[in-house]
Amino acid sequence: MPPPRITKPIYFGPFLVTSQVFHTTPHTFALVNLKPILPGHVLISPHRRVPRLRDLTPAEISDLFLTVQRVSRMIERVFNATALNIAVQDGADAGQSVPHFHAHVIPRREGDLEGGGDAVYRLMEGEEGDVGGHLEERERERGRGREERSDGVQTGRRRGQFPAVDADEVRKPRSEEEMRREAEWFAEEMEKENA
Amino acid sequence: MPPPRITKPIYFGPFLVTSQVFHTTPHTFALVNLKPILPGHVLISPHRRVPRLRDLTPAEISDLFLTVQRVSRMIERVFNATALNIAVQDGADAGQSVPHFHAHVIPRREGDLEGGGDAVYRLMEGEEGDVGGHLEERERERGRGREERSDGVQTGRRRGQFPAVDADEVRKPRSEEEMRREAEWFAEEMEKENA
Repeated sequence: MPPPRITKPIYFGPFLVTSQVFHTTPHTFALVNLKPILPGHVLISPHRRVPRLRDLTPAEISDLFLTVQRVSRMIERVFNATALNIAVQDGADAGQSVPHFHAHVIPRREGDLEGGGDAVYRLMEGEEGDVGGHLEERERERGRGREERSDGVQTGRRRGQFPAVDADEVRKPRSEEEMRREAEWFAEEMEKENA
Repeated sequence: MPPPRITKPIYFGPFLVTSQVFHTTPHTFALVNLKPILPGHVLISPHRRVPRLRDLTPAEISDLFLTVQRVSRMIERVFNATALNIAVQDGADAGQSVPHFHAHVIPRREGDLEGGGDAVYRLMEGEEGDVGGHLEERERERGRGREERSDGVQTGRRRGQFPAVDADEVRKPRSEEEMRREAEWFAEEMEKENA
């Protein structure tokens, strides 16, 4: 068993994601996704749990987007990609599901999605892009679900979410073990980028 | 007539966009859109005409995303928005239509688009998001169209582009005058942000 890469717990919004984290810098961490839209879909977030771009300091912005660049380079190389989508839903009314600033990085290549270069946006509309919903589902499966209101309304549910399509309903979230292994792999690959 | 804000020509890819530019910094410029997806949809680009995030220097990345933050703050205030979409199509296979790095900033508020927070992505799929196609169309209208191949295939056409929907076909690009006035207005509003 290799020594743990990360020595203290890392939270993404209310969610403990330490085993999903593959890279950290003074202000930023990068994590693998519970239900990636495409293989290699990762998230980059500031350590400070603030929701909006406007909340970030100049040092945090520089560090975060330099990390996006370095992580993008690794992801593009490892997944033999030719392009990347980089997207921020900055606030609930823009589709943000976890109130902790994060940039999506998604590797792309020709013909990877039916519908062409921009088809990834359709997937971000559906259940696939609902990072918060996925993490809440996992919390419930772990038997320590987040609070639900007595009227049965789930809290933290993304506004304006599209109904989940059948194909996605049957898709299972990835296991902790699968994500931990991917995070270890990406951590090794990041070493090559820094060299 | 106010003195010109911008003293030398600014190019976005092959396109002269000086009158659309409302803000410049040492490494970055911000411009208004020919066919915005929503009012206040603007683009932020580095002065250096490079296509990909990986091409940017650390100084360019810091300057560009600090400018995205400042411009976002202005756009959110001026358009009474509550959120923003920030998106980069980093390469043709991710939907990039002009090979000059640019971040889209789109102000959002509840119920602004049928379909909720992420519906903006559907619009980016269609002709609405095809920044390059729109600018080429304008060049043709100006009577100095870009080269067309003898086989009639338009060059610079975005890969994987969705067919234009009828509603968009009849929508006219904005006039030079309208964009120039909007750019002047945004330039004044940017002064308030810096104060």
